[in-house]
Amino acid sequence: MNFSSKLLENAVNEFSRLPGIGHKSALRLVLHILNQPEQDVYRFSESLNQLKSKIKYCSVCHNISDNEICEICVSGRRDRSIICVVEDTRDVMAIENTNQFQGVYHVLGGLISPMDGIGPSDLRIDQLLDRLKKGGVDEIILALSATMEGDTTIFYLYKKIKDFNLKVSTIARGIAFGGELEYVDEVTLGRSIVTRVPYERNIA
Amino acid sequence: MNFSSKLLENAVNEFSRLPGIGHKSALRLVLHILNQPEQDVYRFSESLNQLKSKIKYCSVCHNISDNEICEICVSGRRDRSIICVVEDTRDVMAIENTNQFQGVYHVLGGLISPMDGIGPSDLRIDQLLDRLKKGGVDEIILALSATMEGDTTIFYLYKKIKDFNLKVSTIARGIAFGGELEYVDEVTLGRSIVTRVPYERNIA
Repeated sequence: MNFSSKLLENAVNEFSRLPGIGHKSALRLVLHILNQPEQDVYRFSESLNQLKSKIKYCSVCHNISDNEICEICVSGRRDRSIICVVEDTRDVMAIENTNQFQGVYHVLGGLISPMDGIGPSDLRIDQLLDRLKKGGVDEIILALSATMEGDTTIFYLYKKIKDFNLKVSTIARGIAFGGELEYVDEVTLGRSIVTRVPYERNIA
Repeated sequence: MNFSSKLLENAVNEFSRLPGIGHKSALRLVLHILNQPEQDVYRFSESLNQLKSKIKYCSVCHNISDNEICEICVSGRRDRSIICVVEDTRDVMAIENTNQFQGVYHVLGGLISPMDGIGPSDLRIDQLLDRLKKGGVDEIILALSATMEGDTTIFYLYKKIKDFNLKVSTIARGIAFGGELEYVDEVTLGRSIVTRVPYERNIA
């Protein structure tokens, strides 16, 4: 593109490095920001600086937190005997929004993905094992994505934790609520028939 | 959403103020930024601060510029007798990328849009008239969007500049190159028949 200003070009280049934002969207965003009042622009950039410099990771579950230990781990109303293992902060938020889980979390920080060069040592698996060694945990829920990487990570974690003599579960897979059968993919539908559940369990 | 961190929430809120970016995309972008090295994040926020504090608008054509007068207006190879009137910087870039225009520009900074509360006095129309009063201009090209607002602005501008005794043109409207007739909307197709051009002009 033919920029009339180096400053503009720099800002557009920075924006187009973000995932899912191309050159044209970046230009649109930057021109929008340029039209905002000065204090709004500074507040925007300051929020990013603050985020990067001040954010902490909970020393227990490794979730993003403003404090040394996150609100969930510090809370007295959480059941510390159930740990839900998730990939990242977004998954914690998603599960928290369901209001269906009262235990605590462990954020792995990724999934095992040899294609992307991410091995078990890049994830917070040792920290999870340390938590288990301390005792007091009865159940581990592996709430990872239903992808190749998720399945690989579940398999690896299962081998590591099976000697701790805990209940290990994964979240249920099947057709989504509101999903019409004819539009469900074959793999999901096939698996949901194989892993069918007794009807009484559904009305419990 | 249920944020585990106030800093994270602030940054996500700032991002979701940008046009076309919802809460989920904002979260994805912020988590991406959080994973970048510290100097990259500071470079990102600094590029925005620099943009806002240092950018200038060309005193002649009002395009975004790093200097008092932009590169196009200062260039010796530009034909100052033809002024192309556009809505904003993006249109200047788009026309520059075609390499079909050797004149200079005038950036209005918007289009007349009573629905959005933008009247003629909000645009740089007086500055355009001042340029015309100084003389030396033979032709005005009104390169505005083919929308209601664009047409309104063209009509208003035409009334203002018709006494200067200049050639006033608008950019051609019709079917796009590569466009198949059956997919062209009726208005465009109808107008392109009414404003048909002699074949000889196309091969010139």
